[in-house]
Amino acid sequence: MKLYETATAPNPRRVRMFLAEKGLLDQVEVIQVDITKGENLSPEFTAMNPMKKVPVLALDDGNYIAETMAICRYFEVAHPDTPNLLGESALEQASIEQWLRWLEFYFMIPCGMGFQHSTGYFKDRMTPVPEWGEVCIDNVKSFFTFLDQHLAKHDYICCDRFTAADINAYTTVAFARVIKVRIGSDQPHLQAWFDRINARPSAQV
Amino acid sequence: MKLYETATAPNPRRVRMFLAEKGLLDQVEVIQVDITKGENLSPEFTAMNPMKKVPVLALDDGNYIAETMAICRYFEVAHPDTPNLLGESALEQASIEQWLRWLEFYFMIPCGMGFQHSTGYFKDRMTPVPEWGEVCIDNVKSFFTFLDQHLAKHDYICCDRFTAADINAYTTVAFARVIKVRIGSDQPHLQAWFDRINARPSAQV
Repeated sequence: MKLYETATAPNPRRVRMFLAEKGLLDQVEVIQVDITKGENLSPEFTAMNPMKKVPVLALDDGNYIAETMAICRYFEVAHPDTPNLLGESALEQASIEQWLRWLEFYFMIPCGMGFQHSTGYFKDRMTPVPEWGEVCIDNVKSFFTFLDQHLAKHDYICCDRFTAADINAYTTVAFARVIKVRIGSDQPHLQAWFDRINARPSAQV
Repeated sequence: MKLYETATAPNPRRVRMFLAEKGLLDQVEVIQVDITKGENLSPEFTAMNPMKKVPVLALDDGNYIAETMAICRYFEVAHPDTPNLLGESALEQASIEQWLRWLEFYFMIPCGMGFQHSTGYFKDRMTPVPEWGEVCIDNVKSFFTFLDQHLAKHDYICCDRFTAADINAYTTVAFARVIKVRIGSDQPHLQAWFDRINARPSAQV
């Protein structure tokens, strides 16, 4: 299998960390795509993923899977216990999915849009709206506060154990440096959790 | 179980249609929440879902599950074959998840944001940015074109059968009327697929 990704981008990092936690990183050949140069906009890349985004997993049978969490789910279903990161019971799977969606909609997307709309980083391929970027950055700051309050009462994001929700929260907190949002000195619970996750070997891949 | 929802809102419709397809609608007591009046902003509702959104599923054991697809996944894991809507094999589950995310990020969210930012419908609780609303509406129009081209070669959104991806695509096409985007006379494949899905009993709940 080949994993088309960009080493510096946050979504591919989620996939790498997920695979590292499951001990499956050696199952994929990693191929770098330079999104700053627009390599993801080529006809060849668009044929793999019409949305023109990294990462994309190319299976040996000729199928392609785009989207971070779809790639993670592929490996989770194929290797459910190495360890399990997306939940076992119906309640666990639903709780993790709830958190993955909260993290995506109220944290990761605002982070990415805050960056793209405030800096115009991809203005060759999208319409930046700076006022919207500022709204998104404010929403990211609010989510830092929400996470700090939540982690005052929990060691992990959900289910009382390490799951994909911790991966996605951790990588997004780290990514928020691009919009100059960092853990505040008044957010000790978020900081302690971040330091714990950061100490895992998977955080270094 | 109690399902807190709003009959006129698009996300609760996705859950109702999913439950109807699985024959599980009678398992939940449906409770209406008036989001226009802000009933979802109350302390009682926020205790169920800190993101203050419908729908929310209240389990009999005291747990709450927020987020449309998390609620759907809860029922799918508990009743995987009634029929299956989120995939069986690793490839099927990943393909459906890929499409669910494309539909969410590039279709449903732009649709909702196009509505909220261009109309200021929820300006009591968010900052509308009209210029961003217009960008979102343009993105919805592009996705209509993408879907028409895709459905020229496929009877269903993915996996050659009816899945949750069809539910989410169908309900979003229908929802797009709030931003005055409708299937064009030059989009016959999208129209034929829409008519087929619209004829299913689950489209009427």
